[in-house]
Amino acid sequence: MTHVFDEAAALEPIDGGFRAHTHPAYNNMVGPFGGITAATVVAALQAHPEAQGHPLSLTINYAAPIGNGPWDIAITVLRTNRTNQHFTFLIDQGDGAVASGTAVFGTRRDTWGATEIAFPQVGAPEDYPEVPFPEFIEWAKNYETRFIEGSLDIEGEQDSSVSTLWLRDKPARPLDYPALASITDAFFPRVFLRRGTYLPAGTISLTTYFHASPTELAEQGDDYLLGQARGARFGHGHFDQYAQVWGRNGALLATTHQIVYYKDPKA
Amino acid sequence: MTHVFDEAAALEPIDGGFRAHTHPAYNNMVGPFGGITAATVVAALQAHPEAQGHPLSLTINYAAPIGNGPWDIAITVLRTNRTNQHFTFLIDQGDGAVASGTAVFGTRRDTWGATEIAFPQVGAPEDYPEVPFPEFIEWAKNYETRFIEGSLDIEGEQDSSVSTLWLRDKPARPLDYPALASITDAFFPRVFLRRGTYLPAGTISLTTYFHASPTELAEQGDDYLLGQARGARFGHGHFDQYAQVWGRNGALLATTHQIVYYKDPKA
Repeated sequence: MTHVFDEAAALEPIDGGFRAHTHPAYNNMVGPFGGITAATVVAALQAHPEAQGHPLSLTINYAAPIGNGPWDIAITVLRTNRTNQHFTFLIDQGDGAVASGTAVFGTRRDTWGATEIAFPQVGAPEDYPEVPFPEFIEWAKNYETRFIEGSLDIEGEQDSSVSTLWLRDKPARPLDYPALASITDAFFPRVFLRRGTYLPAGTISLTTYFHASPTELAEQGDDYLLGQARGARFGHGHFDQYAQVWGRNGALLATTHQIVYYKDPKA
Repeated sequence: MTHVFDEAAALEPIDGGFRAHTHPAYNNMVGPFGGITAATVVAALQAHPEAQGHPLSLTINYAAPIGNGPWDIAITVLRTNRTNQHFTFLIDQGDGAVASGTAVFGTRRDTWGATEIAFPQVGAPEDYPEVPFPEFIEWAKNYETRFIEGSLDIEGEQDSSVSTLWLRDKPARPLDYPALASITDAFFPRVFLRRGTYLPAGTISLTTYFHASPTELAEQGDDYLLGQARGARFGHGHFDQYAQVWGRNGALLATTHQIVYYKDPKA
């Protein structure tokens, strides 16, 4: 049986790129969950006949909501260097671009390495109960989420926008680059926690750096990931949020940043 | 007299975009300092006849070194929404693309706001002596840098990649979006501090979120900015670094992230 994630990220080759389809299981408030779109882009780049190496960096700008149905991604291989490869891409639904972005693939070499930031001090995933997102957030039903702090059980305004949680695909699925890309967008808008309520909000631009080597992805398998997300500055209708995604074994698999639009009717 | 920064970021309109020129004062080891390229892109976007609002997000991917001489930027206005505008751009030097990226401009509205991360605990800029970058880093001569920690006076390997410094254009120049973009790339590769030596290293992709409103830029004027930069994970020939740029008055003006390539001959 095909995993719902693979159904949602499925591609067919067309002239100059690939065609994808929105999937009802990954619906968001307006249009699809941005993470599944990012994941599908990563899958398309990996499926490109000239692709070399593995995803290193992805930036996707969400210019307009994607409508239900098919969407097309056009990929340009901008430049292939010895150890990295640069792409640009454009997502179109017939009447104009709805998203665009850039990506870099890289060849991973053995070098000195270190992880400078500390793995958060938390218990094992099994120590925390599953706390789902609210019923109306359709896409989140595809993730098993066990919050240490900062769930969507919001009880008024708070000073911290931090969420720390164990999460993985539901049902569990071996981690790959598309799934990792999707998970880097699985942290709901930080402004909900700060304001203690839901607000109209949407990602404008998402950037993810893939630190995980293919070996590290294989080591992770379908186990829980630890995610931690935080906002730095909120104001003038926009905020940034950054997050880290760790493997259960302590490997920092991805770091991610996004800038988000919000409306604040209370202001 | 024209400030050297304005000389370096100068543009002339050409069909479909603008022409810029590398400037010897902003030379880096190979090609120009990435910050001045990013700054010139921001200036070009602002000069675009259809531009609306102010810079909110910029991602620039450096695909190949820019050669000395002219370079051309082609700008596409992908979509203009009510409160934001999406751009893509391509930098070309005649024989192929050397850089590409995306940008979002936004209209800033009055909303609830908060800065969640703390301004670093440091003294006034005048409390720290000016510590320049090494003589051979040409571009850095255009910045006055007063380090609190993490200067390039490197004394062996260390566990922290953090630099905290007061800095501003030299000679001092009123802050604008292009100058702010440039400063978000003025943090040398974090791997130098960790390894205690210079290594071949270069930015692959830089993303900057502009939190500053035009009013906040004006409030900053030509005063010192506080910058703090850090790497999260180093490995497989790549690392990420993120930085915050604060106004002297405590306003968080920009947050920025980049992924950097490095070679480590010691490994």
